[in-house]
Amino acid sequence: MRERLPRRGERTAGAGSPSPEEWWLGLPGRIVGSVPEPALDLDRAVAATRRLDAMSVNAIRALVMDAVEAAGSGHPGAPMGLAPAALVLWTRHLKHDPSSPDWPDRDRFVLSAGHASMLLYALLHLSGYDLPMEEIRRFRQWGSRTPGHPERGLTPGVETTTGPLGQGLATAVGMAMAEAILAARYNRDDLVVVDHRTWVIASDGDLMEGISHEAASLAGHLRLAKLIVCYDANGISIDGPTSLAFTEDVPARFRAYGWRVESLEDGEDLKAVDAALERCRASDRPSLLVLRTHIASGAPTKQDTAAAHGAPLGAEEVRGAKERMGWPLEPPFFVPEEVRRYLRQVRTRGARARRSWEARFRRYRAAYPEAAAELRDALAGRLPAGWDADLPGFAPTTAPIATRQASARTLEVLARRLPALVGGSADLTESTGTRIDGAPFAPGRAGRFVHFGVREHAMGAALNGMALHGGLIPYGGTFLVFSDYMRPAIRLAALMEAPTIFVFTHDSIGLGEDGPTHQPVEHLASLRAIPGLVVLRPADANETVGAWRLAVGRRQGPTALVLSRQALPVLPGTAGAPVERGAYVLRGPSTPAVCLVATGSEVAIALEAAELLEAEGTSARVVSMPSAELFEAQPSSYRERVLPRTLRTVAIEAASPLGWERYATAVVGLDRFGASAPGSIVMRELGFHAGTVAARARALLAPRA
Amino acid sequence: MRERLPRRGERTAGAGSPSPEEWWLGLPGRIVGSVPEPALDLDRAVAATRRLDAMSVNAIRALVMDAVEAAGSGHPGAPMGLAPAALVLWTRHLKHDPSSPDWPDRDRFVLSAGHASMLLYALLHLSGYDLPMEEIRRFRQWGSRTPGHPERGLTPGVETTTGPLGQGLATAVGMAMAEAILAARYNRDDLVVVDHRTWVIASDGDLMEGISHEAASLAGHLRLAKLIVCYDANGISIDGPTSLAFTEDVPARFRAYGWRVESLEDGEDLKAVDAALERCRASDRPSLLVLRTHIASGAPTKQDTAAAHGAPLGAEEVRGAKERMGWPLEPPFFVPEEVRRYLRQVRTRGARARRSWEARFRRYRAAYPEAAAELRDALAGRLPAGWDADLPGFAPTTAPIATRQASARTLEVLARRLPALVGGSADLTESTGTRIDGAPFAPGRAGRFVHFGVREHAMGAALNGMALHGGLIPYGGTFLVFSDYMRPAIRLAALMEAPTIFVFTHDSIGLGEDGPTHQPVEHLASLRAIPGLVVLRPADANETVGAWRLAVGRRQGPTALVLSRQALPVLPGTAGAPVERGAYVLRGPSTPAVCLVATGSEVAIALEAAELLEAEGTSARVVSMPSAELFEAQPSSYRERVLPRTLRTVAIEAASPLGWERYATAVVGLDRFGASAPGSIVMRELGFHAGTVAARARALLAPRA
Repeated sequence: MRERLPRRGERTAGAGSPSPEEWWLGLPGRIVGSVPEPALDLDRAVAATRRLDAMSVNAIRALVMDAVEAAGSGHPGAPMGLAPAALVLWTRHLKHDPSSPDWPDRDRFVLSAGHASMLLYALLHLSGYDLPMEEIRRFRQWGSRTPGHPERGLTPGVETTTGPLGQGLATAVGMAMAEAILAARYNRDDLVVVDHRTWVIASDGDLMEGISHEAASLAGHLRLAKLIVCYDANGISIDGPTSLAFTEDVPARFRAYGWRVESLEDGEDLKAVDAALERCRASDRPSLLVLRTHIASGAPTKQDTAAAHGAPLGAEEVRGAKERMGWPLEPPFFVPEEVRRYLRQVRTRGARARRSWEARFRRYRAAYPEAAAELRDALAGRLPAGWDADLPGFAPTTAPIATRQASARTLEVLARRLPALVGGSADLTESTGTRIDGAPFAPGRAGRFVHFGVREHAMGAALNGMALHGGLIPYGGTFLVFSDYMRPAIRLAALMEAPTIFVFTHDSIGLGEDGPTHQPVEHLASLRAIPGLVVLRPADANETVGAWRLAVGRRQGPTALVLSRQALPVLPGTAGAPVERGAYVLRGPSTPAVCLVATGSEVAIALEAAELLEAEGTSARVVSMPSAELFEAQPSSYRERVLPRTLRTVAIEAASPLGWERYATAVVGLDRFGASAPGSIVMRELGFHAGTVAARARALLAPRA
Repeated sequence: MRERLPRRGERTAGAGSPSPEEWWLGLPGRIVGSVPEPALDLDRAVAATRRLDAMSVNAIRALVMDAVEAAGSGHPGAPMGLAPAALVLWTRHLKHDPSSPDWPDRDRFVLSAGHASMLLYALLHLSGYDLPMEEIRRFRQWGSRTPGHPERGLTPGVETTTGPLGQGLATAVGMAMAEAILAARYNRDDLVVVDHRTWVIASDGDLMEGISHEAASLAGHLRLAKLIVCYDANGISIDGPTSLAFTEDVPARFRAYGWRVESLEDGEDLKAVDAALERCRASDRPSLLVLRTHIASGAPTKQDTAAAHGAPLGAEEVRGAKERMGWPLEPPFFVPEEVRRYLRQVRTRGARARRSWEARFRRYRAAYPEAAAELRDALAGRLPAGWDADLPGFAPTTAPIATRQASARTLEVLARRLPALVGGSADLTESTGTRIDGAPFAPGRAGRFVHFGVREHAMGAALNGMALHGGLIPYGGTFLVFSDYMRPAIRLAALMEAPTIFVFTHDSIGLGEDGPTHQPVEHLASLRAIPGLVVLRPADANETVGAWRLAVGRRQGPTALVLSRQALPVLPGTAGAPVERGAYVLRGPSTPAVCLVATGSEVAIALEAAELLEAEGTSARVVSMPSAELFEAQPSSYRERVLPRTLRTVAIEAASPLGWERYATAVVGLDRFGASAPGSIVMRELGFHAGTVAARARALLAPRA
């Protein structure tokens, strides 16, 4: 039984006369030293392995060139330079089973340099994932499973969607955090059921992006030893040599973050890469392996040029490259049967590793049935029975309470019933009410709460990584205005349908004195515009509880909870309100003269305005709309019942009016930035009070001149 | 004539018996060594200076505490720890004239740690800027000039709006770039008219943010020697000790960027800070000065605690702090007359430096009249006569051309007439068509084109810094989808009304194969929601020329140009079209049956659809709407003429439909992410073709069932 790769210096089982299946497991350089006198058989095996490795590298390079050529677009350069290192990683180090891409204890592989997608597709195809050659031939075509950049959910073996630079790296940090948290919680001295690594291939672009700083600094701080990043230092960016813009000392920078750093002068030397990856695996800190490679390695004129980055090499260059590597010029997409057989061993070994884990998990289940059931459910995304049984309710007689505080109280209750709930904040823990009791995640100690530091972007991506990893329900908090700092991560959560929960407090000009730099205006519209993101802005404490219930219950797609800094009254009619329908009638007769629709802190204002109107004899309905997306998903009959098209309607939201015309004839919104002053004064000065709203309603009802 | 501070080891004029006005210029530590035998007078002067410096530090600390106490909110901790260093910087190193805060050759001071605003307000007030004590008393109140975070345009002496962490630092990098570019262009061997530094005070939060990595790496690469950053290493973040989340080796990290780094164990030692700043000024690389300080320095129980970060210290703590520093407990806002007199010398010296520069500029004008006129106009934001004289026009017979290419051609022409036009791209120079001919800005050489690297966020903020600095018309390009990476900088440009030009290409699913990670969907709505940002999405080459004319002509507030990757036909009727009105009738009778309104690449589709409808006997108007914001700014009569409320209207935009209900009864939009395939196929598959549009129009016109 061999569940992991042999460590440096270890002899593989039965060495001396390795079975063909075992050859590829040890590159020559790893066996030498542990075998006193190399037998003739072994020499032959070594030679065969060398040949097969070289052929496999060439097969990958040829597939990459052919696929990009056929598509007429794509990025051939990076995959060609990376092929040797990726082959070594994929065959010797990555613990994965192509026949079971979702096996929980697999290593995670993240191609942060998503533009090098053909490298990943070639590897997936050749090692036996369900990605047939037809898909390689349909690279970048409508309906294929080989899109321009890898997309989670579309292609088996793709762990996360990448392409926007830096995201993969930061998402991988979240995956490594999830592994550490689950390992600390579920492993037992005698039985280890969570034990896998997160591998990343990153480009210079990934490391130039700001998010790489946040993510790497955090990973170093948390000493995520099972995170290993291969940096493809090919010296070429889109504009030309990286020296045009990028001359920092990357190794020194990562050492400053507390990483183990190693550089290989020849990043295309399989043996050297193999040995270096072995050392990375033994590190007690995250590892950066700098690989000096050649973009479009092997291309006769375009190697080491920016021309090879993002366009097909052209027929002539492809021919030249194939000639140089002794590859048949025809047919395109040619893969020698030997290479197929050789790489199919990934499947054999992977299945063995998986079965071994399954056996171990069976023993675990027998020994620790409760922990096993909890872990299994968590990994499957199943919520424990009664998870929402203790959720609080608030009576209208309760003292006003900010929805961020109601959120904190809800979270406290949820955390007790939901061990999978894990989160943190970007250095705004008290302000956003996002703490979970207990010791925080610290170097060498994996808790349930993460101090992300002032790193919104890495937090967003890491939350995604946790959600994609499975086993956890991740959430993270910051101020709504700083959602701007993590937008690319929010977008990717939506694109991947990752069930990440974003907690955004201080949700309007009502936050007051911190002023316009901290007061969101455009953020609600900006978030609502993201397809697949559910934005929930509860009106009071009860709707906040409902919003959390929805966010946790929603195991597909991200949710943004948008919460007030300021205290808000608990409104009559919100207890048990149908938050899941997105909007509902909170008050008013069935045939009102006018309708007021609002969200969050403005619902109370709408209620006050309705009373003003009522006192004048104008009957007014008040609709609370915690989520426009959920409302849009309702049947039209429900929508028409709540917001009849014929009913004159005023929308009130202390934010950009963009989008409200869908529901309202008049909008009390904000088309300017806020101002620094106490929140209640800013709200009043900028028109958010019952008087303005009632006046707008009266104007709507007045007969036209 | 002393226009600059004396260098280390230099004797101040008349030393031995310095006039009171000169005492403060040299701290004791700087005179010792150059004066053989300290005279008794000098000893006395030194003692007096020491006393006045100490009193000034205390005055700042007391003002900070009192103002935060009076406001009932704010951030007292950082200003108290920073007061000594800031005083030294402000009085000994910063070249500025409180009576002329806009003097072009002043040093720029950026408080990147914007929450420490009271530090800046205290310094501005005490050194004689137009910020009277009433404003200090009205800290964080409605209508005051002392908002929670410093706001450019509101308070004299505030160079840039800060608060969102990391922005100040990156904006300062842009200011330093602007100085370098203007210095290289306008200085002459015999006459230096551009010669100033950019000083930054940054907090741990600034350095945790990803943008700090991008900005610092870029500044190191460009060797911006006149950029000096003081890092307030007080060891406390909002959540508690920075060690909770931030354990990287900051000095090593900045050394890796190519910065000169120096750390002071006691960052509150005036003499040590003074000497260190002197060394920073002599550096040939950007400098990071790490100051170990104490948050809420001097507060009896809250010093060195997170409690002092973002809340008033409380009356008792304030009393204790004042007692410890021997400060009168009453009245609040007390400033000794001696301190006032002492710090008023900043004005005297500043005015002298400014006058000296003015005299130098007069000599420059006499010697180099053309360069002087060009520089003066550029600094004043005046465009040279005939700047838009050569702009190209495109006939409908021209071959289809992508608006990004039309933009590149326009830019080429503009660059010849507008020396102030300076820009770059985030490693997408050819793709975004943003190159200006000539050598790029490189270490030691300041060109007109900047390779920003894959650093969208720093690019955005640096462009803002250039715009705020003056003398340049900055623009920068990336793909529209990556506007997400720089949103906080775009927002600040809008908030500050900085005339930054953002060039966003690859503006829809029409970009094709790169797939959904690269295809914007929500970005147009997200940008339109930002108050004050003008978003221009031209329909063809002619509208692109018009869009550039507007963007350059608009010297207040930012502009986003949104351009296609794919080729678009030159449309009949766009030559000389009134882009500045935001929308106009491109085609159709005055009393049409239906109206089609579209932007960018979808205008051509609308025209095709109109022809389909016309062939069926349905007269259709087509409105091109390059900018919703500009259209909204038109008189209602114009708006009603172009898009009459009673006319049934279909909007077509390959983007989120959010916001289109304002203008249209039906919207052909996109409420999902895109897909990887050739652009024309993606457009067609997702419904962006004349057939769908015509069908929607027909449905609108059909009698209701």
